[in-house]
Amino acid sequence: MRIPNHIGIIPDGNRRWAITQGLKKNEGYNYGINPGLHVFKLCKDLGIKEITFYGFTTDNTKRPSIQKKAFIDACIRSVELISKEDSEILVLGNISSKSFPKELIKYTKRNIFGKGGIKVNFLINYAWEWDLNKLKVADCNLKNILNNIESNDISRIDLIIRWGGRRRLSGFLPVQCVYSDFYIIDDFWPDFKKEHFNKAIEWYNEQDITLGG
Amino acid sequence: MRIPNHIGIIPDGNRRWAITQGLKKNEGYNYGINPGLHVFKLCKDLGIKEITFYGFTTDNTKRPSIQKKAFIDACIRSVELISKEDSEILVLGNISSKSFPKELIKYTKRNIFGKGGIKVNFLINYAWEWDLNKLKVADCNLKNILNNIESNDISRIDLIIRWGGRRRLSGFLPVQCVYSDFYIIDDFWPDFKKEHFNKAIEWYNEQDITLGG
Repeated sequence: MRIPNHIGIIPDGNRRWAITQGLKKNEGYNYGINPGLHVFKLCKDLGIKEITFYGFTTDNTKRPSIQKKAFIDACIRSVELISKEDSEILVLGNISSKSFPKELIKYTKRNIFGKGGIKVNFLINYAWEWDLNKLKVADCNLKNILNNIESNDISRIDLIIRWGGRRRLSGFLPVQCVYSDFYIIDDFWPDFKKEHFNKAIEWYNEQDITLGG
Repeated sequence: MRIPNHIGIIPDGNRRWAITQGLKKNEGYNYGINPGLHVFKLCKDLGIKEITFYGFTTDNTKRPSIQKKAFIDACIRSVELISKEDSEILVLGNISSKSFPKELIKYTKRNIFGKGGIKVNFLINYAWEWDLNKLKVADCNLKNILNNIESNDISRIDLIIRWGGRRRLSGFLPVQCVYSDFYIIDDFWPDFKKEHFNKAIEWYNEQDITLGG
């Protein structure tokens, strides 16, 4: 079976899930923490080398402050939870804005936790414009654009899995995703099930990979 | 009904379709020309303001030369065919390489044909790296990246429709597609039907548009 090297996770639908449970929108994010640990462990068991979680974007921070606090807290706890596992964590985002949580500053250079063995990237206060804007001072050519953007320590993504039914990237790593295969799960992220992940991996195995050729 | 301003068309599956018809792979492209005119007319009837066709990429030009000749010829004929309609055509791609067809040079600045009224972009010998690489000499900021890439005359895309079942961008306009909704049709492009298009438009109408917010 052909396993992706790098999986991108778009954990969408926390607020919509909360509404279905009779909760307030901001209460949904808390239920998205354990699914992250679960999918991390599944990736690790399968020998996947790198995983990137779409935490939150600078666009997201324009939401009501009670929601903003809730998703930032959930992101902090998610990073801390996975830092207790064997992993190599990088938190990437615009640290020069107030919306970047100070608790995560120490993760903004890649650190090895335990025995390491799997790269885990969290996009925190990320913006695609911020990522690409670094190119304007780059000494790059057509072949090394990926090495000259802010997210240069995040490799090309093979498979993107998005929960919550939307079929879009929503600004997720535009350069790393140019050739990615895109798998959509209609269930909301807090309803994560092992079967979602397994179906995505089986589907990926059936795709031909041409990298644009 | 909410109609997209700008639709991206990824007309994939010409070679796979040819095989299903007992033809050689290179013979499929010829059957992808009329579907382009058809989808153009449907867009026009619906009041869509801009349409972008993914012609071919510099990656594609590494294919066997008989295929390369076939898809380049099909692209030339497609542009010429639509230039007989009321349209505002732009052909965009790397003209400094030999793979750029000289017949299309005259379309590389936007020209109005007939009464104009709908922008039609063709990506010809396009490469996402070439597109983004222009940023390195740009005087841009976080808010005007789109104005400083090679494809700056192509606006943000609302809806991408891809034929041929693959669920990926394959390098298609990474900046314009950061927020695009993505609709996949399993049929191959030469099997284009009006119903494909109508279903995509109906599906788009049901999506919420947040532009990352």
